[in-house]
Amino acid sequence: MSGGRTARRRVLRVPATGATEHRADLLAVEEPLEIRVDGEPLVVTMRTPGNDIDLAAGFLFTEGLLGGLDDVHEIRMCDENVAAVTVKPGSALRSGSGGTARNFLTTSACGVCGKDSIEAVRVRSAFDVAADPVRVSPAVLATLPDRLRQAQRVFTRTGGLHAAGLFTPDGTLVVLREDVGRHNAVDKVAGWALRSGLLPLAGHVLLVSGRASFELAQKALMIGVPVLAAVSAPSSLAASLADEGGLTLIGFLRGTAMNVYAGAHRVTSY
Amino acid sequence: MSGGRTARRRVLRVPATGATEHRADLLAVEEPLEIRVDGEPLVVTMRTPGNDIDLAAGFLFTEGLLGGLDDVHEIRMCDENVAAVTVKPGSALRSGSGGTARNFLTTSACGVCGKDSIEAVRVRSAFDVAADPVRVSPAVLATLPDRLRQAQRVFTRTGGLHAAGLFTPDGTLVVLREDVGRHNAVDKVAGWALRSGLLPLAGHVLLVSGRASFELAQKALMIGVPVLAAVSAPSSLAASLADEGGLTLIGFLRGTAMNVYAGAHRVTSY
Repeated sequence: MSGGRTARRRVLRVPATGATEHRADLLAVEEPLEIRVDGEPLVVTMRTPGNDIDLAAGFLFTEGLLGGLDDVHEIRMCDENVAAVTVKPGSALRSGSGGTARNFLTTSACGVCGKDSIEAVRVRSAFDVAADPVRVSPAVLATLPDRLRQAQRVFTRTGGLHAAGLFTPDGTLVVLREDVGRHNAVDKVAGWALRSGLLPLAGHVLLVSGRASFELAQKALMIGVPVLAAVSAPSSLAASLADEGGLTLIGFLRGTAMNVYAGAHRVTSY
Repeated sequence: MSGGRTARRRVLRVPATGATEHRADLLAVEEPLEIRVDGEPLVVTMRTPGNDIDLAAGFLFTEGLLGGLDDVHEIRMCDENVAAVTVKPGSALRSGSGGTARNFLTTSACGVCGKDSIEAVRVRSAFDVAADPVRVSPAVLATLPDRLRQAQRVFTRTGGLHAAGLFTPDGTLVVLREDVGRHNAVDKVAGWALRSGLLPLAGHVLLVSGRASFELAQKALMIGVPVLAAVSAPSSLAASLADEGGLTLIGFLRGTAMNVYAGAHRVTSY
């Protein structure tokens, strides 16, 4: 089932004691996507197939390599697992120097030594999230994980796919994207918004399954979304970057409560 | 608390309805680690500080860039967040062409197009895991997640750190490493084993919190560990690679049962 999001596989179900049984299981599909720019391989990301052009566009944008669609002639799939980006004559991708976990440095001669650690890896956003006046109520926020899970259930039942969902402040799901990689799910949302002409995503809430890393906080800032919520824990650097960028960062959003790590002025009961 | 594994932060605890309260929360520390080889920046990985030399050695080894310690003159921290690797005169790092999620391609002119997707991203191991005769009982396997969690509790209470634990077939924990990134936790185990002269890790079980991706299956093969177990779901490509490499892959190891996705002959009640 290449090209699909799930693959069926025969597995052996084994209890600690007692009889085993063979059964069918659905796995989240993981395949490499190569992103090429003007014929040159730029990066390979391990992703779940689907929305690959959005993923390519979103990756380039949130990594600061692409300022917008104006410089792009075309993005197309030239193979099941290869997205080919063609830049307009006279344009070029910016030289990115980091921001991605496990990013191979291509331009920095100095690296992180002696620099403030955030400065060394962050990419500057074109959007000012700090000025976004949106407010979100705790009662609405508390409903978002269930809404995300319900929408996810329609698509997959593998237990192996992360999700990123974009919501309005009244809790309406605008778009949901799934992937084995949380960063890819967010890049698929980013690319969708970029290609739909919706950036910046002012006044919206981005919810991610699992944890909130530095990388996800950075991607949120890059697409101009003022509220990033995660079902699980944020990292220290995600919280620091949220402080610095004026991003509201919510973690442990589960059950009927949440922790607000930064930008608490946006979380209000009105 | 730079350099530590956890950082204290004041957060706002917000229920869906009712009164908010400020409280202290512990976050998993995330900081960039730059790995330099002979003075040149090679990669930046977002990691939790601690065991950084193991992480650098393990990363280079599991990515196939380093065949062993024979080629290495020294690995030392030249800054809190910079690991400097010096290669022996006449030696060089191998040119890696992938295997890592979000790896910037440095050598492949062709990339994944037209190739089998596993072939395009996998790195060849020096060890033959398929021939490993070890067997593990389901009763022992079922105890491992609790042992991992108990050992983890000693170190951190952030809810934000992944763990990788190396066990013997009788369930004894040999080494535990934690990180915000699961791949880093595994690389820390790999580097520890490499620097301790313990590779290949024949006859052992590697348990990871969370999911099992292609990348983790590949790292398991690179260090010669015959059984990879995950608390959550594996991906399709992890299962395919396990098939191909003769690796036993166990997923959803929780409660009193597990799913065996590959290499079920090693899971036996004797």
